[in-house]
Amino acid sequence: MLYLISLGLWDEKDMSLRALEAGRKCKKLYLELYTSPWFGSRKELERLFGKPIELVGRQKLEEGISGLIEEARKTDVGILVPGDALSATTHLSILAEAKRQKVKARVIHGSSILTAIAESGLSLYRFGQTVTLPKDGPKKSFWDAVRKNLRAGLHTLVLLEPGLGLERALKLLKLRRPLVAGCRFGGETLIRYGRPSKLKELGDCQPAVLVIPAKLSFYEEEFLSILAKE
Amino acid sequence: MLYLISLGLWDEKDMSLRALEAGRKCKKLYLELYTSPWFGSRKELERLFGKPIELVGRQKLEEGISGLIEEARKTDVGILVPGDALSATTHLSILAEAKRQKVKARVIHGSSILTAIAESGLSLYRFGQTVTLPKDGPKKSFWDAVRKNLRAGLHTLVLLEPGLGLERALKLLKLRRPLVAGCRFGGETLIRYGRPSKLKELGDCQPAVLVIPAKLSFYEEEFLSILAKE
Repeated sequence: MLYLISLGLWDEKDMSLRALEAGRKCKKLYLELYTSPWFGSRKELERLFGKPIELVGRQKLEEGISGLIEEARKTDVGILVPGDALSATTHLSILAEAKRQKVKARVIHGSSILTAIAESGLSLYRFGQTVTLPKDGPKKSFWDAVRKNLRAGLHTLVLLEPGLGLERALKLLKLRRPLVAGCRFGGETLIRYGRPSKLKELGDCQPAVLVIPAKLSFYEEEFLSILAKE
Repeated sequence: MLYLISLGLWDEKDMSLRALEAGRKCKKLYLELYTSPWFGSRKELERLFGKPIELVGRQKLEEGISGLIEEARKTDVGILVPGDALSATTHLSILAEAKRQKVKARVIHGSSILTAIAESGLSLYRFGQTVTLPKDGPKKSFWDAVRKNLRAGLHTLVLLEPGLGLERALKLLKLRRPLVAGCRFGGETLIRYGRPSKLKELGDCQPAVLVIPAKLSFYEEEFLSILAKE
């Protein structure tokens, strides 16, 4: 059996009791930390699961999929993943390949920035398509998505490519309109709303996301103004 | 301190270790089960938290907010919520009111159908605005959102109002095009893709959601066809 085990938002305490149970059952555990940032410790995970955990990089995970799946045909194998397990394309590909190879697979879900962003006071039902900002700047498809969202009166959640910090992201976007910036979701969350110059006060607080908001409702605006004073 | 504690998708095992820790610290725990379906047991939660839990209905939660917040000013109070805590407007209002009253509040996140839907093989980055299908049928705003999503090439996640089953939902939508239906996320997930007549084979499998997909990518289509054979 192949388990895709979500670790959730911040550290090892954000995984579910079901994740803990599944991981303890696995004979072999892999940990993947390159698709999204995670602030827990492998040591602490090993203590909780009661076994060693092998850190895997992009190469082993993407090129070695068939090896992993053959291993999971014979025994219980778990891949530990930050956030919710299928938010990265890589993990969806692994699940698809397991299914193609008729190896049983199970997904254990966890918390994710895609819903935790509601801590900003922005309604999850007012979000359009989510986009990722690459380190080398936004592509045409990025702005197409933002524009369509704005035209439909919807907010855009902007994820930052791993390694991209808030200040650099603001420079890449070159926007002057007020944005929502948030960081450390799941931990000591900080959220600010304002023009890019104001958002810089968050410094290198990590991991960070941005929202390009559509016209805010009265409640959203009030909520954000309270957060600014915290 | 007021804790909004997510229970996650399916049952008590879907809450995080952080949720367990926060709930154990609380002097008083409330459980809210009317905003989304949840398949755990209050008894089991009481065992895990080591204290009695009071079930609260809509009235106490929505009209008694100030009472709850005054209680949280004096002691640690937790409100246990299915899915991720701020997916329902009610909980966002409670958080806003706590902040207005300067009572400290903390959100403990959990798994949610808004990201778990990726188990269908549909990419989370191809979803537009999420909509809720009310028991008395879709309103104009429902179809407006679906149309905008389709025009932008995006899938629409359709949540069903609590109490609304899959068969009735399909009748209310009156669509003939192929849809994705899924149920029991977090538990023994079942997902099907096809015309409404085919989706009926899921029966009253609960809780269920629908997706009105935009044009599927090759990978999405392949994934859904494998699921259909499981």
